[in-house]
Amino acid sequence: MSQVDHTRMANAIRGLAMDAVEKAKSGHPGLPMGAADIATVLFTQFLKFDAADPAWPDRDRFVLSAGHGSMLLYSLLYLTGNKEMTLDQIKHFRQLGSLTPGHPENFHTKGIETTTGPLGQGIATAVGMALAEKMLAAEFGKKIVSHHTYVLASDGDLMEGISQEAIALAGHWRLNKMIVLYDDNGISIDGPTSLSDSVDQVKRFKSAGWAAELIDGHDPKAIAAAITRAQKSSKPSLIACKTTIGFGAPTKAGTAKAHGEALGAEELKGAKEKLGISLEPFSVPDDVLKAWREAGARGAAEHKAWDEQFAQLGNRKRAEFERRLRHERPASLAKGLRAFKKGLLENPLNVATRKSSEAAIEVIAAAMPMEFVAGSADLTGSNNNKAKSAVGFAAKTPKGRFIHYGIREHGMAACLNGIFLHGGFAPNGATFLVFTDYARGAMRLSALMGTGVVYVMTHDSIGLGEDGPTHQPVEHLSALRAMPNMRVFRPCDAVETAECWELALNRIDGPTVLALTRQNLPQLRTTVPNDSPCSHGAYELVAAQGDAKVSLFASGSEVQIAVEAQKQLAGRGIATRVVSVPSLELLLAQPAERQNAIIGNAPVKIAIEAAVRWGWDAVIGHDGEFIGMHGFGASAPAKDLFPHFGITAEAVVNAALKRV
Amino acid sequence: MSQVDHTRMANAIRGLAMDAVEKAKSGHPGLPMGAADIATVLFTQFLKFDAADPAWPDRDRFVLSAGHGSMLLYSLLYLTGNKEMTLDQIKHFRQLGSLTPGHPENFHTKGIETTTGPLGQGIATAVGMALAEKMLAAEFGKKIVSHHTYVLASDGDLMEGISQEAIALAGHWRLNKMIVLYDDNGISIDGPTSLSDSVDQVKRFKSAGWAAELIDGHDPKAIAAAITRAQKSSKPSLIACKTTIGFGAPTKAGTAKAHGEALGAEELKGAKEKLGISLEPFSVPDDVLKAWREAGARGAAEHKAWDEQFAQLGNRKRAEFERRLRHERPASLAKGLRAFKKGLLENPLNVATRKSSEAAIEVIAAAMPMEFVAGSADLTGSNNNKAKSAVGFAAKTPKGRFIHYGIREHGMAACLNGIFLHGGFAPNGATFLVFTDYARGAMRLSALMGTGVVYVMTHDSIGLGEDGPTHQPVEHLSALRAMPNMRVFRPCDAVETAECWELALNRIDGPTVLALTRQNLPQLRTTVPNDSPCSHGAYELVAAQGDAKVSLFASGSEVQIAVEAQKQLAGRGIATRVVSVPSLELLLAQPAERQNAIIGNAPVKIAIEAAVRWGWDAVIGHDGEFIGMHGFGASAPAKDLFPHFGITAEAVVNAALKRV
Repeated sequence: MSQVDHTRMANAIRGLAMDAVEKAKSGHPGLPMGAADIATVLFTQFLKFDAADPAWPDRDRFVLSAGHGSMLLYSLLYLTGNKEMTLDQIKHFRQLGSLTPGHPENFHTKGIETTTGPLGQGIATAVGMALAEKMLAAEFGKKIVSHHTYVLASDGDLMEGISQEAIALAGHWRLNKMIVLYDDNGISIDGPTSLSDSVDQVKRFKSAGWAAELIDGHDPKAIAAAITRAQKSSKPSLIACKTTIGFGAPTKAGTAKAHGEALGAEELKGAKEKLGISLEPFSVPDDVLKAWREAGARGAAEHKAWDEQFAQLGNRKRAEFERRLRHERPASLAKGLRAFKKGLLENPLNVATRKSSEAAIEVIAAAMPMEFVAGSADLTGSNNNKAKSAVGFAAKTPKGRFIHYGIREHGMAACLNGIFLHGGFAPNGATFLVFTDYARGAMRLSALMGTGVVYVMTHDSIGLGEDGPTHQPVEHLSALRAMPNMRVFRPCDAVETAECWELALNRIDGPTVLALTRQNLPQLRTTVPNDSPCSHGAYELVAAQGDAKVSLFASGSEVQIAVEAQKQLAGRGIATRVVSVPSLELLLAQPAERQNAIIGNAPVKIAIEAAVRWGWDAVIGHDGEFIGMHGFGASAPAKDLFPHFGITAEAVVNAALKRV
Repeated sequence: MSQVDHTRMANAIRGLAMDAVEKAKSGHPGLPMGAADIATVLFTQFLKFDAADPAWPDRDRFVLSAGHGSMLLYSLLYLTGNKEMTLDQIKHFRQLGSLTPGHPENFHTKGIETTTGPLGQGIATAVGMALAEKMLAAEFGKKIVSHHTYVLASDGDLMEGISQEAIALAGHWRLNKMIVLYDDNGISIDGPTSLSDSVDQVKRFKSAGWAAELIDGHDPKAIAAAITRAQKSSKPSLIACKTTIGFGAPTKAGTAKAHGEALGAEELKGAKEKLGISLEPFSVPDDVLKAWREAGARGAAEHKAWDEQFAQLGNRKRAEFERRLRHERPASLAKGLRAFKKGLLENPLNVATRKSSEAAIEVIAAAMPMEFVAGSADLTGSNNNKAKSAVGFAAKTPKGRFIHYGIREHGMAACLNGIFLHGGFAPNGATFLVFTDYARGAMRLSALMGTGVVYVMTHDSIGLGEDGPTHQPVEHLSALRAMPNMRVFRPCDAVETAECWELALNRIDGPTVLALTRQNLPQLRTTVPNDSPCSHGAYELVAAQGDAKVSLFASGSEVQIAVEAQKQLAGRGIATRVVSVPSLELLLAQPAERQNAIIGNAPVKIAIEAAVRWGWDAVIGHDGEFIGMHGFGASAPAKDLFPHFGITAEAVVNAALKRV
């Protein structure tokens, strides 16, 4: 591709981006204008993709970590011939219902790999994609799985702490097929990055085991040469591309004014004149569009060759590959868990739910040995989510399916998103429940994108004991329940734990938190109906003898307290029932009739949870009794903390007696 | 101090740590044993402190970022003669009510600078302390303020992303009085750090503008020489100290087994024999204790000299310094805001609450020009928390009181904690409300420690419009309200905004979130009573004409919708009142009588908030009507989004009519 062609092609991106932002009177023209040269080189010479099939499994992944520059991506989709991304969509940039929202949304627009905008998430999610590529290639061979993961990242992406977690992991794992193009324009919203930053990014990435170099981001030959070098590296690569934000804008280029607002009619005109772009809005010269469409079809032959390779796989392996990419679970999973649950009825498991989770994981890993990818943020022995058979993943053991993330909860969560989005795996990651605070940025994207990842969050209350209030979650259950499309399960025993694991793995359109105890619990469930009771969020675990005067609602470790209180109250002739509530928000999402049936009409309603009340009034009413936490926890053995904070069967009985 | 003395003194730490963990059967012996040499050199030769007065303003700060090694700190406090830290407290390590909880809690134990345990927080909070030192020194002179901030950090601290945000800021600001001693023991909970990490920390810190070197962490001369070099550096310094975790333990030293559990009787005995420590639990030889006590009194003379210097300050300056350290607000603040609010009644300000906040900030900054320290995570022009007069803080402008944090929300929040804990300032930091997800780890510590910091969180709903669901908070209000000791204010107009700012600044025992709109709002309040109505969380803004049939509850931008609906309903003869709820959790914390009076008895209760329902049932009941969000937002102009999601006066009227 000649230099002239390159510039005209890059200018097509610039023109569309300027026009779309101008029409919307909202958006970010600076990045698309500055990074157009990088994107043009990447998409016309390197990126393996077929615009006719954005879901081709062996495509290269391109992640626009700097999601505010969404018009770069929309322009590329339109120019390369993505079927749904019409010029009309570009004209409706940032309008209700368009395929061109303010930030790229993969759940909304085809051809977009992941949702970005919250800075740092793209680069960290891409690490998960590159990891998945390496794991899947080790399993199915490089003829079927062999693609790169490219990231376009901004200053802001690299300032966010999550970026450090991500690059440390990628460097450690030697994810050499991950290539980050850093749009090094030296400008952020407040002005020059020198206002707040002095980091030498090339040196920083090198310190994390990356290949890294600085180039001129407006020189297509330099860009191509750097990508070529990066493709040959045995390490992940950073290419810092010095660019001018808003390249071409006569007065705003190189300044923060080009970053996040429409250029304005005059500046836009000036930019187009300077760049030699037609003043006609949204116009792309025919020959330029043709060249772009050719770039979009560039991968068609390779795609066809891949199809042929794929066809040569045995039927079984092909079916397996396709099932895995559909996130469909093997039939052996349900069967195995069913037998496991029945076995529990015969041989109860009176252990911590983190331990009964471990037992369930043995069954799951047996059914899904290569797709169940567990990992922990350096709490493997505490989280208990490593199957005995699981081998640690490392650069030299890419078939390993247990991942040591180090103390990097946020990076882990983003990685889980990337692994799921890449396809082929059912990923889960573990830490203490309290540290969901560190991972919340990525967990919210799990919920928004609907990635079916599982968060194994152990040590779920003051029951963790001596580590004290910094490590004892009290508000986290509520804060997670409040998040749309996030499912929180807090099982009360081994049977519920197995049920919740199954529900979590079968939930492929959203994430699940499993909140598990450190401390031992008795097995309380005595039946394992096919219609898993946990699937309705709550169910009557112990019926009242006669018309219930008292309903006790509890989750997790406090269900045993409810059961004990029920016995004491029944002994005093007060008809009491116990409702186990593994998922409060799921209960509240049930149809009214079912919800009312579960909640019941007992005049006294008491909720018991070693956490804050926030949210429980929906079940017990503002005048209901709540036995739980009213502030932060304390450092002491767990056996001392429950009485200290008044979370005991006696407290429940007293509260009930006061009301009856 | 001779080499022999050093080793025996360090062994006193090791002995106490081993014994305390053994007795508790819980805790982390490995770090205190490994880092004892570093701590001994620091505390006996360098750290400026006076054990008799842990609150001496010009003491050096010591932050144990690796909070799990709390026995290191407790041992040091006991050995150096901290009055409250008796041997009996050490013997009750990790027990209910002791001064020796699992992780160091500054709000609980004197002589501890900040609460640590969640990894990365200590080092990031320390950056705020060092920043505060620099700012305060620029104001009061180096004779009054001149101290170092030392941090002992672990592998885990440096793996957490927040550490990158912190070191980038410290390097950029050239906080040369910050010295990080990195306990480089190569071991984390899961095993050798090589399981998950390959980062070269010396190179990494250098890339962020730090001086950095690697030394033998068991060689007291090397440690002392490195600290001496660091004190002379013009940059912040990292001293990576190669150590052996669990130093002295015969079989567990250098392994993960020494990290987080009691050594066990045999290993403990072996360690003591190897190190030459008495087998008698908790015993410290008299001469060693004496040497330690001398070290604790080492700073007494310097303290006295400082007292004399301080006495030479003018009365006014001395009183100002002391007032500032007490976090007491100047009388001019209340006076200025009172006049401002009265002025608003005459000249209403019908603007976004982020803009009326800006107007209030002008008044606040005039009253507290040097102590009101604002800052933004690269959204200065959007958050509107920079006073016109405010100068940007930089290495060369240490009197600047506006801080450009870059795109580092988590680092910013930790920095705010550090600034507050250091004393002398009323810090606030700003970003979009949705990005509290990134900062939550540090915000929780604000709440737990009770730091009086203010989080200026703008763009607080779908009202931010085009940026779309990644930038539109829907669950964040609820998730923050659920956090103990966190105050969330969402003012509805300019008057409430000023009131909430005053309440926030006067709240010096806990943090406050101000949730502010992007979009314009009408001024609704018509009175400014002395007893600020916002201080009760909620109040009747519009009374019903006659017995109310409908109560409308709303916060922030939705109060105008409630007011409009009230008019329409009143027009139809339905007596309706409006309750403004700037702080839902504060309303629910009021005494029952006041709470009932505010909530009232209208048969129909409707809450209106452009956020999720979670938590509102406490006011409106589970059968109450909620007009708000039921999932994530969307990208479109704000004016299109409110009708799209059905958050309008018409929807409120219809809901009311359905029920009346």
